[in-house]
Amino acid sequence: MLVQGWRLSELHCHPLSTESRIQWTTNFNSHALAWSESKSIVSTGFPCKAHHSEITNIKFKPSNIGSRNSLIQVGRNGSKKQAVRVVSSDVSSLSMKLDLLEAYDDDYDGVVVNPECLPPSANAFASMLCASLSHWKIKGKKGVWLKILDEQVDLVPIAIKEGFSYHHAEPGYVMLTFWIPDTPSMLPASPSHLIGVGGFVINEKREVLVVKEKKCPCRCSGIWKLPTGFINKSEEIFSGAIREVKEETGIDTSFLEMIAFRHAHLLAFEKSDLLFMCMLKPLSSDISIDDKEIAEAKWMPLDEFVGQSFYEDDQMSKKIIDICTATYENQYSGLTAHEMTSKMDGKSSYLYYKDLKEI
Amino acid sequence: MLVQGWRLSELHCHPLSTESRIQWTTNFNSHALAWSESKSIVSTGFPCKAHHSEITNIKFKPSNIGSRNSLIQVGRNGSKKQAVRVVSSDVSSLSMKLDLLEAYDDDYDGVVVNPECLPPSANAFASMLCASLSHWKIKGKKGVWLKILDEQVDLVPIAIKEGFSYHHAEPGYVMLTFWIPDTPSMLPASPSHLIGVGGFVINEKREVLVVKEKKCPCRCSGIWKLPTGFINKSEEIFSGAIREVKEETGIDTSFLEMIAFRHAHLLAFEKSDLLFMCMLKPLSSDISIDDKEIAEAKWMPLDEFVGQSFYEDDQMSKKIIDICTATYENQYSGLTAHEMTSKMDGKSSYLYYKDLKEI
Repeated sequence: MLVQGWRLSELHCHPLSTESRIQWTTNFNSHALAWSESKSIVSTGFPCKAHHSEITNIKFKPSNIGSRNSLIQVGRNGSKKQAVRVVSSDVSSLSMKLDLLEAYDDDYDGVVVNPECLPPSANAFASMLCASLSHWKIKGKKGVWLKILDEQVDLVPIAIKEGFSYHHAEPGYVMLTFWIPDTPSMLPASPSHLIGVGGFVINEKREVLVVKEKKCPCRCSGIWKLPTGFINKSEEIFSGAIREVKEETGIDTSFLEMIAFRHAHLLAFEKSDLLFMCMLKPLSSDISIDDKEIAEAKWMPLDEFVGQSFYEDDQMSKKIIDICTATYENQYSGLTAHEMTSKMDGKSSYLYYKDLKEI
Repeated sequence: MLVQGWRLSELHCHPLSTESRIQWTTNFNSHALAWSESKSIVSTGFPCKAHHSEITNIKFKPSNIGSRNSLIQVGRNGSKKQAVRVVSSDVSSLSMKLDLLEAYDDDYDGVVVNPECLPPSANAFASMLCASLSHWKIKGKKGVWLKILDEQVDLVPIAIKEGFSYHHAEPGYVMLTFWIPDTPSMLPASPSHLIGVGGFVINEKREVLVVKEKKCPCRCSGIWKLPTGFINKSEEIFSGAIREVKEETGIDTSFLEMIAFRHAHLLAFEKSDLLFMCMLKPLSSDISIDDKEIAEAKWMPLDEFVGQSFYEDDQMSKKIIDICTATYENQYSGLTAHEMTSKMDGKSSYLYYKDLKEI
């Protein structure tokens, strides 16, 4: 609802036993509101103040809004008042006129806005967002989740300027959040980690499957390395290791165990990653490289692989290769993956631990 | 550069040994371009076609642009041509006039736009973005990284409509990417995982440190559980476990080993999480709960904790508690954390593996 460029963003009534309230917010800092019937003001308590996104309650008796000539007058303090005609004088239908964003409650006293039902117009969205925030505040809601799809991108600046924060994003959408209470946000953080996998594949001739990467941004250009990569969305660690080895070298493998993992921070975009080293058993021997990523791949005698001078003063790589070798020689064992269900969330997932026979 | 609502988004020249080129893109599909000097067309090859974000090269000899009266004429095929006066006819200064976004090269043939130097005006940004994309394409660049801060949010719709995709976001900024080649994007995925930690703390009286959470959205309301939580940005797994136990219960601990981890998918926002169960040694005994998250905390006899009927038919929790108990009874051992440097990235990070003495 626009009054000479001022947005009266919410106007609704709650029928109470003996009196009702008009609750409203505006997007300017200070104003007066008057309720009149037949041009005579019947409610007291004006002028009043409301701050951006705050709610002012004006109590009045339902009998006060008995005619279609009822007016609500709004304006900045000290400036000319503007009259907004109340289309319906019936309290309940006045309340029905409210345009709120469609949302459902979550399990944490929060609301999740339905992205399918966002208005296409930026102006309508701005009014509805403002009205909805007031409504959710009244209802004692805490966190608000607002997912905005690519085709709705014009709504992003409106929400950010209204006080929303980015939570996370991926191709196709951005997720914004708003924490309503005057306390630190209790909303969960956004995903922080990429998950990498590496495969140690060794054959019966004591040869290791190694690759040279085409594009190596680090100081390891030209080094024969173990195949590594990142797991896909919702992929298991063991499946990711098998897939990466297959993609880079064409070799089929099966998962034996996860033998060690590295936790590194402040990598790309200041995020972290976990790299899980997996012992894999080769099921084929003919190499066929992925020439987008890999320059060369081959089976290399273990001693020659370990003996590369680069690894001699690379503490991390040396330790990982030592563990791989020890595992191959049955002097070390890592964790295996076991699928089981959890009553906590009713889901099936994998627990990685040392085989039961060793417990 | 706007010509009757059509954006001639780039216009620059590369001095070559014997000839130069005008390279330009438009935001409409088909058009004609003519180069004229003193109102006579001196270059051939018109009309020509360019598609949105594609580049058309017009070769001409530097001698052709010898006067300030040179004109470039652009227009849709079949529609009235519009003339854009070339302010300077000097090839090198024409090239200098180009307003490109400030960016630096990354290690993967990509560019990273400097967020500190984005123009505040949306119109200027639109032109510079379009010109920069053409420029980077000419230079053979592949991935473009564009970080937009909260205060620059009006630029987000422009970039998305230009073909950028969301990569990731967190409070304060959103990161967008653009893959220039006509091949599938090779850019790394956004962070996909939250990292959780759980602490198994058992004292000399065989009592386990347990909590009841205030807000439990799952089917485990009222159950005595092990303290759990998410690690902070750039926090180590063992530090996170110690911190969460301290925050929730007030108990000081030291890290012994990581004994098992669960990998679960399609949780909040369809993302995944890894929950690392850590064996911790208690260093204090007086409990002081965090009443924002925790309803109660206490030391509970191990048998009583294990005997809770909820866990009997919760396969995942039961297995985790079995592993914790076996570790306490020295019948199981997990992985310990070892800090070391990597020559690959020159960084220090933690490798989790079974203690060397066991190798």
